[in-house]
Amino acid sequence: MLKKSIYFISILAVFMLFSSYARAEVDGEVQYILNTFLFLVSGFLVMWMAAGFAMLESGLVTSKSVATIAATPLPWSDGSALDTGYSDGSDWFFQMVFCATTCSIVSGTLAERIKIWPFFIFCALLTGFIYPIEMGWQWGGGYLAEAGFSDFAGSTLVHSAGAAAALAGAILLGPRIGRFAKAGAPAPVKPFAASSIPLVTIGVFILWLGWFGFNGGSQLAMGTADDAIAVSKIFINTNLAACGGVMACAIVTRLMYGKTDVIQMLNGAIGGLVAITAEPLMPTPIAAILIGAVGGIIVIFGTKLLFHFKVDDVVGAIPAHLFAGIWGTLAVPITNSGANFGTQLLGVISINVFVFVVAFIVWILMKNTMGIRLSKEAELKGTDVSETGVIAYAIRD
Amino acid sequence: MLKKSIYFISILAVFMLFSSYARAEVDGEVQYILNTFLFLVSGFLVMWMAAGFAMLESGLVTSKSVATIAATPLPWSDGSALDTGYSDGSDWFFQMVFCATTCSIVSGTLAERIKIWPFFIFCALLTGFIYPIEMGWQWGGGYLAEAGFSDFAGSTLVHSAGAAAALAGAILLGPRIGRFAKAGAPAPVKPFAASSIPLVTIGVFILWLGWFGFNGGSQLAMGTADDAIAVSKIFINTNLAACGGVMACAIVTRLMYGKTDVIQMLNGAIGGLVAITAEPLMPTPIAAILIGAVGGIIVIFGTKLLFHFKVDDVVGAIPAHLFAGIWGTLAVPITNSGANFGTQLLGVISINVFVFVVAFIVWILMKNTMGIRLSKEAELKGTDVSETGVIAYAIRD
Amino acid sequence: MLKKSIYFISILAVFMLFSSYARAEVDGEVQYILNTFLFLVSGFLVMWMAAGFAMLESGLVTSKSVATIAATPLPWSDGSALDTGYSDGSDWFFQMVFCATTCSIVSGTLAERIKIWPFFIFCALLTGFIYPIEMGWQWGGGYLAEAGFSDFAGSTLVHSAGAAAALAGAILLGPRIGRFAKAGAPAPVKPFAASSIPLVTIGVFILWLGWFGFNGGSQLAMGTADDAIAVSKIFINTNLAACGGVMACAIVTRLMYGKTDVIQMLNGAIGGLVAITAEPLMPTPIAAILIGAVGGIIVIFGTKLLFHFKVDDVVGAIPAHLFAGIWGTLAVPITNSGANFGTQLLGVISINVFVFVVAFIVWILMKNTMGIRLSKEAELKGTDVSETGVIAYAIRD
Repeated sequence: MLKKSIYFISILAVFMLFSSYARAEVDGEVQYILNTFLFLVSGFLVMWMAAGFAMLESGLVTSKSVATIAATPLPWSDGSALDTGYSDGSDWFFQMVFCATTCSIVSGTLAERIKIWPFFIFCALLTGFIYPIEMGWQWGGGYLAEAGFSDFAGSTLVHSAGAAAALAGAILLGPRIGRFAKAGAPAPVKPFAASSIPLVTIGVFILWLGWFGFNGGSQLAMGTADDAIAVSKIFINTNLAACGGVMACAIVTRLMYGKTDVIQMLNGAIGGLVAITAEPLMPTPIAAILIGAVGGIIVIFGTKLLFHFKVDDVVGAIPAHLFAGIWGTLAVPITNSGANFGTQLLGVISINVFVFVVAFIVWILMKNTMGIRLSKEAELKGTDVSETGVIAYAIRD
Repeated sequence: MLKKSIYFISILAVFMLFSSYARAEVDGEVQYILNTFLFLVSGFLVMWMAAGFAMLESGLVTSKSVATIAATPLPWSDGSALDTGYSDGSDWFFQMVFCATTCSIVSGTLAERIKIWPFFIFCALLTGFIYPIEMGWQWGGGYLAEAGFSDFAGSTLVHSAGAAAALAGAILLGPRIGRFAKAGAPAPVKPFAASSIPLVTIGVFILWLGWFGFNGGSQLAMGTADDAIAVSKIFINTNLAACGGVMACAIVTRLMYGKTDVIQMLNGAIGGLVAITAEPLMPTPIAAILIGAVGGIIVIFGTKLLFHFKVDDVVGAIPAHLFAGIWGTLAVPITNSGANFGTQLLGVISINVFVFVVAFIVWILMKNTMGIRLSKEAELKGTDVSETGVIAYAIRD
Repeated sequence: MLKKSIYFISILAVFMLFSSYARAEVDGEVQYILNTFLFLVSGFLVMWMAAGFAMLESGLVTSKSVATIAATPLPWSDGSALDTGYSDGSDWFFQMVFCATTCSIVSGTLAERIKIWPFFIFCALLTGFIYPIEMGWQWGGGYLAEAGFSDFAGSTLVHSAGAAAALAGAILLGPRIGRFAKAGAPAPVKPFAASSIPLVTIGVFILWLGWFGFNGGSQLAMGTADDAIAVSKIFINTNLAACGGVMACAIVTRLMYGKTDVIQMLNGAIGGLVAITAEPLMPTPIAAILIGAVGGIIVIFGTKLLFHFKVDDVVGAIPAHLFAGIWGTLAVPITNSGANFGTQLLGVISINVFVFVVAFIVWILMKNTMGIRLSKEAELKGTDVSETGVIAYAIRD
């Protein structure tokens, strides 16, 4: 009877041991689901950023940034031995909306004078070749990753890269007709009438919202308490950097011009968000505010710089994404002891120079073959009519 | 002492066995929470689609689609012995926002000439009787479900059904005054001035975003890795079908008209999204793009067809939701071997004919009693003034 | 051999017992993650409400509500011994966006005539001192919490408090020039031209969406099936109360004016949402609709009341947030047997009187020192030009 008992207990114990292993796997499954959930929620927030860019750019430009998403490469796989800890599809979805961000930045700079199909072709090359190459240097485990470069969610890899490609295009396209009537004129006359502050505002708010996905999702995991704490910190720092950018621009424009420039405040939010993107996890709240504030101020002076060189950047994407991205990336070592300034500088220079040069070559090739700029008549008529035809039905405004 | 040991171990083992069962229930609870969370996140995304429809329709129409949500029936229950694996409330919330979608489609077609209260009454009938009946044929386990009909998230059950009801109303209401000045005139003159592309654009983006909830939530579960993988695939295919629709419309309008029609591109996104809704899980990415592309092209030619028959569909809801929905539903067997073309055709015909006929009868009854169309004066003054009175305070634009 | 077996089994059992404890902690971790996830998703929805307020207010006002978020105090902490069951950061993020809501309400009332920097300073005082004090009486475990006051997500603590501060400012600022041309005139003339119903509409929809986060997140947990059920119920009741407000305003304005006032319907949604915020969990669906409907009707008559007293409330924030908030808070005992009318009245009076009086003193001090109102010239030119300078670049509309 004793023997039987022991025999029974042994079987019971072995059964429980197996069930315990089985249950350990279920826990792995919970982690898997939570990680995937983070990618999906973050992914739809980042996808939503396309709407933000579209509202910033508004009108025709919109269609371009929508469409470019379709040009994104398709490294599809649905294998999942639970190895990676998340659904490959959710990761790919998240990567894809990242990639599409670069095109949105380009379209914002070149709006109102670029032909739509050359823009599509450029976007296919940017998302299919240029971005994957430089991104691979870091997130693909390339030489920058090995050198210890640190760019958490892509201040340089995504934002500066997109804006460097935009800068190359802006130089080759030239400014819109009438943009720079006189040397050093602070602002053109013609565009004023058409501008809509509420659309800019909702555009910036959408980007602000989407940025929680952009930075929060870059934690890449939500399956442990540590990850949850990290994502929470990232949310807070992302928010505070945007606030820092807004308030810094409010104060600086007030002191400089005697007026609080609302557009610069909204641009300051973007500058702050780009700046914190390189390292949204490590800064203290005060540091996040200051990093964002400097990002915002850089947008003000970067805008002046582009005006000085008569580079026409319709939505101010280059100051916000390139200049503030450089600042944010170089500032990483201030709060993250694992990064060093030399490697950050290496990453900033190599990525921006690479993207700018390759983009410049692509734009020049297209300029000399199919042409990239609208005709004078088309531009003066407006791209809506000349490039995108007549609107087919009525929307009441 | 040995006996005592065994006795002790036995008790310990039994205790652990029970605790293991107890813990298995906790895991069931985690599943329950995750499933519910999916419904809630998906539900708020689909609810948000109402804003997308509202922006598409803009102005007055808005108020109609908002209000119809209130007309939704209330099959409330809060029982949950964890049987269903999710909170009944979250499921109901998800179902309700689905139901409300059908009204949004109707309001988009009939805007600017329908009386607001007959529209409310129609919505109450559509959401309270027509939709529940045909939806029950499939999701209530009715004869279509038994026949093997396949309509994952409702290309036919929701989108076509809403648009079939709208078509019946559009035929009986007639076109807006001045809409079809001459036979075959491609576009009216009057509505152009008032249209706002940015509002259309943000409307489409909101719908695009909401569709992740619409299709992703229709997986109905997030509690296993398989579900998480499925939802990820659905997100990707949903996105790619929208892109396919956009790019197809860009190419086709360019070839047909020499201009890239931005409105058709945006409509193409909706067509692609409706088309993939019948089967967003099984297609490969390439197949998803092609299904969406065909959906987008159908919108272009469907719009021409309605023009030819002088059916006035203000936002183009019938081509996008009815025609692209038929295509998507019939295309399911191409990627899902569990479906067959005959049954899909049966479902498409029986649902659309049923909804169209019943809606036609309801519209005709209302037309001959309370009247459904605004007076000539009211329509020319605009529905804002004639139907919704004077605006009470100022918003700066 | 028997002894060895027992020895082996004992070790095995102890090992399993420990692993069972270890796993119990992992489950605690899952709870922790899910709770945090709820805060983060709810938090980004509430943050997004700032965009809703901005769209409601539109134009310049926008910049104010953005910027005020930066003025929020920073009670940062990252300690987490898993004690609280969620990441402190996620909770703080959620609390911060709550706090920012009060400023959005104030800016909506005072728009178009208040100076931007006095407004910033007031927001700093409101979010840094006034709100934390009265909020602490309840959520900080103060005397109202001890007395049994019940205000689930802050009908009074957040919404009424913000609107009471706005009322104090509106009285001291006086109405916009030309707002009340004649005594009892139902509506002014000048503001009409600039108003944009689509922006109001998307603003209300954004708020409606964000309210799922506001009320749902106030459950403070998502780690058990009971919490998931509760959050689902809160979502449904929140939605139904908004619908109730919309439909009540549609019916009442139809009966009163012969026209269905779309702006009042949209305001009715806000009134319904504010009213249900005090108790979104306990009401049955029918009760939620009725609570929201009364909230909506209160907005209509509250608006008339303010007109009567010539208090100029640009976006109608006082009727929606103060009056409907009082109703919702006093109505709690109807559906929640744990609350009683006397204590609810105590809470409503003490919070609103406290906030109104302190805000009145702050506004009067600022009025007599730095001044709070724009000059006549600046106001007539519009705050965009006078306060926020020239717009720097073009947005196509």
